[in-house]
Amino acid sequence: MYVYEHTLRVRYGDTDQMGYVYYGKYAYYYEQARAESIRALGITYKQLEQSGTMMPITRMNIRYIYPAQYDDLLTIRVTIPELPGRLITFRYEIYNENKRLINEGENQLIFLDAATRKPKRAPDELIKKLLPYFAGDVP
Amino acid sequence: MYVYEHTLRVRYGDTDQMGYVYYGKYAYYYEQARAESIRALGITYKQLEQSGTMMPITRMNIRYIYPAQYDDLLTIRVTIPELPGRLITFRYEIYNENKRLINEGENQLIFLDAATRKPKRAPDELIKKLLPYFAGDVP
Amino acid sequence: MYVYEHTLRVRYGDTDQMGYVYYGKYAYYYEQARAESIRALGITYKQLEQSGTMMPITRMNIRYIYPAQYDDLLTIRVTIPELPGRLITFRYEIYNENKRLINEGENQLIFLDAATRKPKRAPDELIKKLLPYFAGDVP
Amino acid sequence: MYVYEHTLRVRYGDTDQMGYVYYGKYAYYYEQARAESIRALGITYKQLEQSGTMMPITRMNIRYIYPAQYDDLLTIRVTIPELPGRLITFRYEIYNENKRLINEGENQLIFLDAATRKPKRAPDELIKKLLPYFAGDVP
Repeated sequence: MYVYEHTLRVRYGDTDQMGYVYYGKYAYYYEQARAESIRALGITYKQLEQSGTMMPITRMNIRYIYPAQYDDLLTIRVTIPELPGRLITFRYEIYNENKRLINEGENQLIFLDAATRKPKRAPDELIKKLLPYFAGDVP
Repeated sequence: MYVYEHTLRVRYGDTDQMGYVYYGKYAYYYEQARAESIRALGITYKQLEQSGTMMPITRMNIRYIYPAQYDDLLTIRVTIPELPGRLITFRYEIYNENKRLINEGENQLIFLDAATRKPKRAPDELIKKLLPYFAGDVP
Repeated sequence: MYVYEHTLRVRYGDTDQMGYVYYGKYAYYYEQARAESIRALGITYKQLEQSGTMMPITRMNIRYIYPAQYDDLLTIRVTIPELPGRLITFRYEIYNENKRLINEGENQLIFLDAATRKPKRAPDELIKKLLPYFAGDVP
Repeated sequence: MYVYEHTLRVRYGDTDQMGYVYYGKYAYYYEQARAESIRALGITYKQLEQSGTMMPITRMNIRYIYPAQYDDLLTIRVTIPELPGRLITFRYEIYNENKRLINEGENQLIFLDAATRKPKRAPDELIKKLLPYFAGDVP
């Protein structure tokens, strides 16, 4: 299991007239946290794409528990629960400054060959970075 | 069961550098289709809010099946599968111009009193509009 | 001079906690109206891009006169004031349902060869469509 | 003159199919940098709003000089050129990691009483924070 925490601040443009963060903005938060979780492994999604791997989203589930508001400093805890094969899963928990869990979600992404747009296995460069976090897993 | 179809066109700003509609944009598409499905009932979400009901989202599930691309004319089929109580569910199926199902999703929303932000039952004005579509349902 | 009018409805996700349309959303409205103004000429921006022309934005000026609000039905009057050369200008006036002018703006776009990303002149296929609207102009 | 520098990273959802940051995203970047420039003064826009001042945008001018791309780390230099009266101006210069100036812009905002939504002068709490930076200015 690989876990990473990223913090970000809610922008005015993220709110709606209810005074809450608009429900569509969480996908952007997830993406930002996901990219930073990969960067912390020592590789970037940009590099993966440049070396021929695209990772479009195939699923998203979100549970909205408590509203986020303008200027809140949110902590997003990103988890990769399993070593990826043809798909990779990211889980997210978002906490506000009072350590309250306000949002939970999950994304599933598929590995595509960037040129052919056909499915393929997770690239070795990513697996190599993730392996240490799954060392004790019984295959 | 209440069903409504709404069409919209993909904007350039909805795409990302993969050349696909960014996964976070579907929540906006759902909202637009949801609002139009309510308007077609003879009431608007704006009126519901003005008469004291807010409906924040509590859940969203999305399955991304096939990419949408710039300038695609998408048809969003919105379904309200059950008469709402304290919660309301909307389901979405998105089809492209070739009638291909490219996306499926679901939202659950909660009814709040706009002043107190406390949960309440679906307002009568909405129930009245929906009742004819659920006439045969055994309570 | 070429003039075209497009209408669109403000989405909930376009509002911010002031209860107004967020100032960053107007660029999306302009893009949507601009694309439709081109489509009305009998050609699409998608086709222009597919036949090798990209049109990134080089300038934008916006004057925010009066707020737009959720569910407003806005009319965007798009004007192309001059036959394009290496650049093209689009002007926008946005009116609400009370015919009040609420926003004015302008974009300048540059024509690029999509493969080389070098500047080029406006493609003939676009000029041909625009010529009738500038017939009386003294060159 | 008050100057502040903020850095942010381009998200995937900020790009479009040209592979550039979509032109409408700069308003969000400006807002984020503007909010941080105020926070660095020892006050927040959130506090200003809570104590009764709203600051909607009245003008925006943007010059797009060079494209920003996915994962770029951008530096936004925010300048408040003059002590505000009934209006406040913010200027922005955006640099990429190669120190290249890629974007320039300006916003004008108006001070409104949050309750009445009528224009008013800049609140004293903001003026007090800004005064030291304009100490030598001849009135």
